[in-house]
Amino acid sequence: MAAEPKKIIIDTDPGIDDAMAIFLALRSPEVELIGLTTIYGNVYTTLATRNALHLLEVAGRTDIPVAEGSHVTITKGTKLRIADFVHGADGLGNQNFDPPKTKPIEQSAAAFLVKQAKLHPGKVTVVALGPLTNIALAIELDPEFCKNIRQIVLLGGAFSVNGNVNPAAEANIFGDPEAADIVFTCGADVLAVGINVTHQVVLTAAGRDKLMQSNGRFAQYLCKILEVYFSYHREAYSTGGVYLHDPTAFLAAVNPSLFTYTEGAVRVQTTGITRGLTLLDNTQKKFGEVTEWTDKPTVKVAVTVDAPTIVKLLMERLMQS
Amino acid sequence: MAAEPKKIIIDTDPGIDDAMAIFLALRSPEVELIGLTTIYGNVYTTLATRNALHLLEVAGRTDIPVAEGSHVTITKGTKLRIADFVHGADGLGNQNFDPPKTKPIEQSAAAFLVKQAKLHPGKVTVVALGPLTNIALAIELDPEFCKNIRQIVLLGGAFSVNGNVNPAAEANIFGDPEAADIVFTCGADVLAVGINVTHQVVLTAAGRDKLMQSNGRFAQYLCKILEVYFSYHREAYSTGGVYLHDPTAFLAAVNPSLFTYTEGAVRVQTTGITRGLTLLDNTQKKFGEVTEWTDKPTVKVAVTVDAPTIVKLLMERLMQS
Repeated sequence: MAAEPKKIIIDTDPGIDDAMAIFLALRSPEVELIGLTTIYGNVYTTLATRNALHLLEVAGRTDIPVAEGSHVTITKGTKLRIADFVHGADGLGNQNFDPPKTKPIEQSAAAFLVKQAKLHPGKVTVVALGPLTNIALAIELDPEFCKNIRQIVLLGGAFSVNGNVNPAAEANIFGDPEAADIVFTCGADVLAVGINVTHQVVLTAAGRDKLMQSNGRFAQYLCKILEVYFSYHREAYSTGGVYLHDPTAFLAAVNPSLFTYTEGAVRVQTTGITRGLTLLDNTQKKFGEVTEWTDKPTVKVAVTVDAPTIVKLLMERLMQS
Repeated sequence: MAAEPKKIIIDTDPGIDDAMAIFLALRSPEVELIGLTTIYGNVYTTLATRNALHLLEVAGRTDIPVAEGSHVTITKGTKLRIADFVHGADGLGNQNFDPPKTKPIEQSAAAFLVKQAKLHPGKVTVVALGPLTNIALAIELDPEFCKNIRQIVLLGGAFSVNGNVNPAAEANIFGDPEAADIVFTCGADVLAVGINVTHQVVLTAAGRDKLMQSNGRFAQYLCKILEVYFSYHREAYSTGGVYLHDPTAFLAAVNPSLFTYTEGAVRVQTTGITRGLTLLDNTQKKFGEVTEWTDKPTVKVAVTVDAPTIVKLLMERLMQS
């Protein structure tokens, strides 16, 4: 008897690499995608919802519910940072797709997360691909959420490396540092996949050409929207490839053996020039004083990744017709 | 004709490994030690001055001036963190040495630094082994100081690793983060040697036994005071050796070829849970926005060290009779 597919909710701000992760999820036999929740980040939340609905329509999977998430950070009043310069003004490579015919469900993202976790205790994994506001709201909404949820796999942080918003902070954590600190210290099974790992997983121009030559409808769709993403990487990183942030984080939820991990308390700096910085206590030293990391629940942080296998899996699955 | 010895001022908070660095300086033919300036850190400033005078007395070098430094951080009112649990209540291994007969000069540490740099423009190197208050005060006192000083070699920071005060901060930077940020961004030739490097340079118990068996008077003296330092390392790091922070930073000023370096802007976080964190911008990414690192002067940060050669040099020189 095959193992029951893993129930996954993707919290997403589509986003070009979000689209890749969502399509990959729909082509992953190990996964039952039970919903998308939306968040600001690559685009504003309204557009994230529209894009999530659109992507499910493209995939012919309008049976999967989309729950709209927060339009603001958890400490209201923080100005949002929207990365439209990475993904295009529409978040999907400036392709002017028709608006989706479907609508999000009535439930908010946080309420949907709480309800699904309660409905299937120990069975639901959240893959969080944007700022962590919805996840923090779910934690605040239901004290049992951290127990009910199987795992929170989050794309976020820059562990012992520079950030991508500024030298200190990675974009998803910078998007809502207070929410991120709530998630890192909530006591759930949390796995963080930071840019120290995702910057090792690259789709090259040759890889894109290969996608383009396949008959897969996801591959065909993605090749259209990828140009903006390649442009941005050429400009910002002087590289001919693109980072596969979101698909990598998704695969960490599905196939954890493709990664190695360290474990320790992670806190997020919320003020000053390093606002949004993620700092892992590797617990090698016994500090004389109580620190802000002392007695905080530990989380797993990805350290290495089998990048060739990630790219291979992604390509194979996206090229299926 | 032999090269002129390098004029060095050591800014110090002795401190057991400070004593090692000072004795090493006095046994280094490449170096002319033209003064000591004192600072709080391992002990309060008053005791640092007493210990500096004492160490020069032990060495028979009371001709070298000692200038007393600041008793408070550069933004007054910050509570000092004194690491007497590392070095003993007296800073020198709880040996109850007699008070020195000599006195510090009238000039303050900052005034002495400014004057010596002006007297020998481009010739004086400061090796800063404690919090950076005196150096920042010298920078504020004289706009020309950064041009006049040859190099500022500082022991400080934890680059891409955990700190030693807490997971975020290294002790010298934590001691006065505002001063450290002034020094890192002052435009002088700054070389930072952080604990990511000095934690690779260890004096083992076997090394100490070898020192003990030598006739060198510095070796004999140091073996007496080292016990407390070994104890602390056993407790805090579960290790049988001790880190050679201060001698390593001193040797970076004297023999830079024993290290490799990276270069970039470094800023210090001054608020919140990561107060005292040092963050280097490795400049690999072109950020979309202006950051707090943009257009700041770059500094050199040590990355690797030839630890065996450092230990060998230290041992050889300290064992001279």
